[in-house]
Amino acid sequence: MKQSHLFTKTKKESPADEVSLNAELLIKAGFINKEMAGVYSYLPLGLRVIKKIENIIREEMNAIGGQEVTLTALQDKSTWEPTDQWADDKVDVWFKTKLKNETELGLAVTHEAAITKMMKSFISSYRDLPKYVYQFQTKFRNEVRAKSGIMRCREFEMKDLYSFSKNEEEHNAFYEKANEAYKNIFKRAGIGHITYVTFASGGMFSKFSHEFQTITAAGEDTIYVDENKGIAINKEVYNDEVLSLLDLKREDLVENKAVEVGNIFTLSTRFSDALELKYKTEVGEEKSVFMGSYGIGPGRLMGTIVEVLSDDKGIIWPENIAPFKVHLLVLGGDDNVLVEAEKLYQDLNSRGIEILFDDRTDISAGEKFADSDLIGIPYRVVVSKRSLSDGGYEVKKRIEPTGKIVKIEELINLLTLKV
Amino acid sequence: MKQSHLFTKTKKESPADEVSLNAELLIKAGFINKEMAGVYSYLPLGLRVIKKIENIIREEMNAIGGQEVTLTALQDKSTWEPTDQWADDKVDVWFKTKLKNETELGLAVTHEAAITKMMKSFISSYRDLPKYVYQFQTKFRNEVRAKSGIMRCREFEMKDLYSFSKNEEEHNAFYEKANEAYKNIFKRAGIGHITYVTFASGGMFSKFSHEFQTITAAGEDTIYVDENKGIAINKEVYNDEVLSLLDLKREDLVENKAVEVGNIFTLSTRFSDALELKYKTEVGEEKSVFMGSYGIGPGRLMGTIVEVLSDDKGIIWPENIAPFKVHLLVLGGDDNVLVEAEKLYQDLNSRGIEILFDDRTDISAGEKFADSDLIGIPYRVVVSKRSLSDGGYEVKKRIEPTGKIVKIEELINLLTLKV
Repeated sequence: MKQSHLFTKTKKESPADEVSLNAELLIKAGFINKEMAGVYSYLPLGLRVIKKIENIIREEMNAIGGQEVTLTALQDKSTWEPTDQWADDKVDVWFKTKLKNETELGLAVTHEAAITKMMKSFISSYRDLPKYVYQFQTKFRNEVRAKSGIMRCREFEMKDLYSFSKNEEEHNAFYEKANEAYKNIFKRAGIGHITYVTFASGGMFSKFSHEFQTITAAGEDTIYVDENKGIAINKEVYNDEVLSLLDLKREDLVENKAVEVGNIFTLSTRFSDALELKYKTEVGEEKSVFMGSYGIGPGRLMGTIVEVLSDDKGIIWPENIAPFKVHLLVLGGDDNVLVEAEKLYQDLNSRGIEILFDDRTDISAGEKFADSDLIGIPYRVVVSKRSLSDGGYEVKKRIEPTGKIVKIEELINLLTLKV
Repeated sequence: MKQSHLFTKTKKESPADEVSLNAELLIKAGFINKEMAGVYSYLPLGLRVIKKIENIIREEMNAIGGQEVTLTALQDKSTWEPTDQWADDKVDVWFKTKLKNETELGLAVTHEAAITKMMKSFISSYRDLPKYVYQFQTKFRNEVRAKSGIMRCREFEMKDLYSFSKNEEEHNAFYEKANEAYKNIFKRAGIGHITYVTFASGGMFSKFSHEFQTITAAGEDTIYVDENKGIAINKEVYNDEVLSLLDLKREDLVENKAVEVGNIFTLSTRFSDALELKYKTEVGEEKSVFMGSYGIGPGRLMGTIVEVLSDDKGIIWPENIAPFKVHLLVLGGDDNVLVEAEKLYQDLNSRGIEILFDDRTDISAGEKFADSDLIGIPYRVVVSKRSLSDGGYEVKKRIEPTGKIVKIEELINLLTLKV
């Protein structure tokens, strides 16, 4: 894509009303637009990142047998009353609204009850189990405060998968697979090395749930990390009983601030009991379906990555989720240089390499470099009179301080190398 | 995908509370699930159709220079008051809700004002124009009645593109391109032959808007079609003045019921004036940006296709938007037949052909045929003892009454032929 065509522009000034680093950088670089506190639009660069994150998640969910659907935001009292989640004193983040006939509706804060109710149409026998169903869908949460940029929003996208199993044993086998799939997701998204499976409160129906916590000073949670074992404990269950259960020692644990980028949760039969999602076993016995839920917010993940992978010049995107792989800059207005840059753009494009081409002619070299650092695309390639007289193009990785001059063959090798 | 894996099932009975054909067939066949009146979830088969429709639209919007974004559902009074669209007596389909601090919010019924306000950050000079920005996003409309299945919903996805031009002339050139892109979309989706560009009321700022109306008895609109010229007039502007302006004669026009599957609309400077989206011309003059809007609802398009392309057995999907290209059925429990069918499934899959494989062994041949007709995949391929002894597989198009036996080479040729 040519940058002269892109409608967004970078901003020199930081937005006055943002205290979070992720919102500040993403707004300055033109990835998102703030509609109001906790409510952000995604601009072309931001949407490209979100779609790459979605695709990683989708591939991992499909690989463990997930089937994709889309449920609805508008929700009915009759769905959430049986699970005791409708009243505002039970779930205090509902946005409520009304039909013309005064029927009260809510905007889904989550979808466990809705999907449990829906699955009653499709599950009746042991032969229908297990099943795994997921969606990417907007959640609405009426948060009192929303100051963490896209890490905590009033309107945000969530991937939520629900598992429906015959019994706890079948559930546990899938739960382990989901755990591995989640590790793959954070690894592929570039934050695997600072993201820990974290033991957290399991609620009424299981001893623990598992959170995926990424270490960052911007996090709202406190966790205790055992580096050697590669696991952590959330402060909420950090006590002697749990330590001994997990065979962890206080002296091996380091306290960190962290943000929860995903969680997996055993629901047991809480929802299936309340909404009567039952199946007949092989011997004709009626049993409640055993459930689990598995969530990741693509926007929160994107915000977290910006918090942990940036420097004073801007964002440093991991290659798998960068909006483009290459930021091609042409410097100066020399006709020959422009022709060479255009040729290179066409050549790389035709090889399926994703390029943002800064073809603007009314911007200085310094501004182009600053924009490129702010936007944070992994490879910067410069075409200038000097680079051409030096024998090619200057290529520099965003994470490295200096670049080098390469010829076309070397550039193509570098950019098409499978990591 | 194997049908034994798919969690949805067809239903024998029609839903009791649906009066529309599209909802009846789509629910029976397992494409959608009704959450409440006018609010439907998309199940795996339905979501596959929606994504194919989205991709056709996306390709056509990108081809005319569109850049994709995602705006938000939650909307603020300050955005919609300047355009006089906030009060319930001005726009009567708002769902309104509230923040904890009692600030009133609305759920977007459309996004003209929101995008106009956003573009103020990015447009200031003639050099920034023209620009074309679109999204696929959920709209919420508090309709009094919702009885048309997925053709008129309270919550539904819409592709809306907005054009920002320097002046009417530049706008008109893009408007014509959008018109052609829309024709391509409906043609590619399989209803081009019964969809007419229809002159409709233009509101205060232009003589006409243009609707894309598909002829169907289920339509809520009345249009007058000139078959020879391939255009139509909406009843709302069907008068002598308009007829003479368009050089049409009453005797050439045929009255039809139709459903509006898309519309393109000149907004002129209504929104840019109200929200002060201005730019500086080459001579430093300040002018309002000239705007247009261009909408298509993927769900409504899907519902319309089901209304017009179905028979008494079920849906007949056009190939470009069918959930799968091939419905492979294995009949009987003979081990050799099962092995042959599995081999064929793997072979076709490896060639990138999208297949739903009815591998269920607890279902009769009659039930499999009935399901296949109901679901409506373009090609049905049967593997049975008989087909194998006849020398291959029975292939039948959904739109044709009978099939024929073909060998593997012929089958592959047939299924990989570019239409």
